[in-house]
Amino acid sequence: LNVNGNEKDPFHSTMVDFVNLQKQIDQLSAFSDSPAPSVTRILYSHNDVAARRFIKDLMGRAGLSVREDAVGNIFGRWEGSEPDAPAVATGSHIDAIPYSGKYDGVVGVLGAIEAINLLRRSGFRPKRSLEVIMFTSEEPTRYGISCLGSRLLAGSVSLAKALTQTVDNDNISFLDAAKSAGYAKNEDFSNVFLDEKTYSAFVELHIEQGPILENEGVSIGIVTAIAAPASIKVDFGGNGGHAGAVLMPQRNDAGLAAAELALAVEKHVLESGSIDTVGTVGIMEVHPGAINSIPSKSHIEIDTRDIDEKRRNTVIEKIQESAVSISKRRGVELLEFKIVNQDPPALSDESVVKAMESATQVLGLSHKKMISRAYHDSLFMARKAPMGMIFIPCYKGYSHKPEEYASPEDIANGVKVLALTLTNLSLN
Amino acid sequence: LNVNGNEKDPFHSTMVDFVNLQKQIDQLSAFSDSPAPSVTRILYSHNDVAARRFIKDLMGRAGLSVREDAVGNIFGRWEGSEPDAPAVATGSHIDAIPYSGKYDGVVGVLGAIEAINLLRRSGFRPKRSLEVIMFTSEEPTRYGISCLGSRLLAGSVSLAKALTQTVDNDNISFLDAAKSAGYAKNEDFSNVFLDEKTYSAFVELHIEQGPILENEGVSIGIVTAIAAPASIKVDFGGNGGHAGAVLMPQRNDAGLAAAELALAVEKHVLESGSIDTVGTVGIMEVHPGAINSIPSKSHIEIDTRDIDEKRRNTVIEKIQESAVSISKRRGVELLEFKIVNQDPPALSDESVVKAMESATQVLGLSHKKMISRAYHDSLFMARKAPMGMIFIPCYKGYSHKPEEYASPEDIANGVKVLALTLTNLSLN
Ligand SMILES: [Mn+2]
Ligand SMILES: [Mn+2]
Ligand SMILES: [Mn+2]
Ligand SMILES: [Mn+2]
Repeated sequence: LNVNGNEKDPFHSTMVDFVNLQKQIDQLSAFSDSPAPSVTRILYSHNDVAARRFIKDLMGRAGLSVREDAVGNIFGRWEGSEPDAPAVATGSHIDAIPYSGKYDGVVGVLGAIEAINLLRRSGFRPKRSLEVIMFTSEEPTRYGISCLGSRLLAGSVSLAKALTQTVDNDNISFLDAAKSAGYAKNEDFSNVFLDEKTYSAFVELHIEQGPILENEGVSIGIVTAIAAPASIKVDFGGNGGHAGAVLMPQRNDAGLAAAELALAVEKHVLESGSIDTVGTVGIMEVHPGAINSIPSKSHIEIDTRDIDEKRRNTVIEKIQESAVSISKRRGVELLEFKIVNQDPPALSDESVVKAMESATQVLGLSHKKMISRAYHDSLFMARKAPMGMIFIPCYKGYSHKPEEYASPEDIANGVKVLALTLTNLSLN
Repeated sequence: LNVNGNEKDPFHSTMVDFVNLQKQIDQLSAFSDSPAPSVTRILYSHNDVAARRFIKDLMGRAGLSVREDAVGNIFGRWEGSEPDAPAVATGSHIDAIPYSGKYDGVVGVLGAIEAINLLRRSGFRPKRSLEVIMFTSEEPTRYGISCLGSRLLAGSVSLAKALTQTVDNDNISFLDAAKSAGYAKNEDFSNVFLDEKTYSAFVELHIEQGPILENEGVSIGIVTAIAAPASIKVDFGGNGGHAGAVLMPQRNDAGLAAAELALAVEKHVLESGSIDTVGTVGIMEVHPGAINSIPSKSHIEIDTRDIDEKRRNTVIEKIQESAVSISKRRGVELLEFKIVNQDPPALSDESVVKAMESATQVLGLSHKKMISRAYHDSLFMARKAPMGMIFIPCYKGYSHKPEEYASPEDIANGVKVLALTLTNLSLN
């Protein structure tokens, strides 16, 4: 079966084994802390460790030599004929936020291994070495740090330091958790940093996580920029008290302060006037959490992004002003307003964009240049190598939920574009 | 030591043993699922079962004959010289919501046992029998049902039915939990219902849970009415999705719908124009609860009360209208709007009020007639017997939090008023 049927397709006799690839996607989805069809795979959990074993096994079968670093980024290398030249890398993540789906990240890891298999079957010999990377904890679920593995690879000194002291919500330290998964034998995480000339290019294959490609019937998205994400944690504190006995004028309700700030986030985002500005309150908790108790503490976490860094920073400033004014007006204490990260946007490199575009043309696949509104490990890899991203359509643009879906045909198209892009970058 | 020093005090030579009573309060507070000074004691938990053993032991030492019913209401009886006449009962609860204090309810159980001890030491002989009751699950924490034990004693057929099918948030059935604590041997809970002529009167001693007595320097509050409580559960559902990829116009954020409704509750309560109307959102949860995921589900629980039932019901209607209009405007589904209970207020009985008032006068204690804004097991016992409540001051009106406090002197005054009221009711 030739997925595409185009005569120019250099892989026509060595097509993507998409039946097997789909089987692997399904197998991987079973390593989950929540029941199917949802997937929950949290950093260093039993299921995460089992899933890592699954990935390393597949890398080994693909003839890649496997190594892992101190936080569990996994590298599978196919040595090229010029082993000392900077290599070409591709990869993504396999961790999954609670109750999400089985394609986010996974397509870019299993798809990359299948691209390697495809290239081997086609008789390709790399010049620059090729590497498949599975990044640790792209999702911020456990330690509140997004793109933990790639951020560290990109040389974040502050993160390397923070990791020695970070704890999760159950007070389990990052160090203990990493050790329990077989990592962090040496506690100096600066040895994870990449040398400047490690990679000559980095490409990531990923589902779009938006509806554009599907709506427009386009096979491949070529990402030119990744939006600038920021995340904020806010805590309010009040006197709490009995829901019957404390009269309304005496109250300083921390839960209502949080509710008001959540609505202010939406308001400030809409005030930007740009469709590209988004803001979300994905976490909202009140303490003690009893129906007959006025909340004495509240905690919310805010995610805001834009392709325009300045515009996004204006939203953050307005959110902070609202947090202060809400706390004053309600007599509630603003215990914390912490900007956890405030990353700049990243641009794809022209050379990588050209290689991806030419691959789609050779394969006869329609493509569209677009912006990534979700962040990815590519945001950080762009700091260490020319970067590019390949998007494939996904059902209704759904992501981060069990209904997330990409068709085997679309995944196979993505794998072929990735494989051809890798050959191009490896030989040049 | 005579706490009061008043010559007319009939207990002057047999004072309240408030050192021992305080010791018992402290001992009981150690049966907690959260660290001191907070108390968390959830129905049928290990700590609840241990605390029940502690109470039964104290009842036994006070010479009371102890029995328990199918849901674990505990009765300690001192047989009077007219054992067939309806008895006089007193009591309260010892369960504690998460992270609350050690006086709510407890004062009315340990204080009642001490009142019995005091009466014995003073040589009193009851005519009508006296009973001390520890009610099961006054707090709605585990099964969402407030005053579970007293509601059932009052003959709630719907509750007796519901209990055979109710489950908690961990999907543990009421039946299994009750059995694990040694109750519900027979699954027909209608055998808990009280016969009409069981009690001739019911009196409950309790901390005020409001600041009035402390502010005005009054020793004893005599409750004339208990405010009408209602509780509501609301669930919203939306499409959720990725916090970066789904643009603002495409969203139907279940979390923001919940935030808006929480603020609407406050608004509608304030619109009533009466200081006696209160409303609280003590529980607010979003799913899946990840910073980069738009909430696809939200759950809030609302408590609203008033001394005027009609005015409170108007607030409930407005909240329901807001829930509907918010869901329409945001394109969010209103999955559930459930009025869990909507109880009428209760009035104290004139005969019991007179007995309490006369007790304060004999003891030379200042008193004030007042309304209870918190509900109590008395709300339901009023359906089966003439009811009255004795309030004592508590620090700053604090309740449902670790800072809750009542002084040993104030507790001792409450015990004496209770004891004298019981003698009066027992002999008439
Ligand atoms: Mn993701
Ligand atoms: Mn991803
Ligand atoms: Mn209470
Ligand atoms: Mn109480």
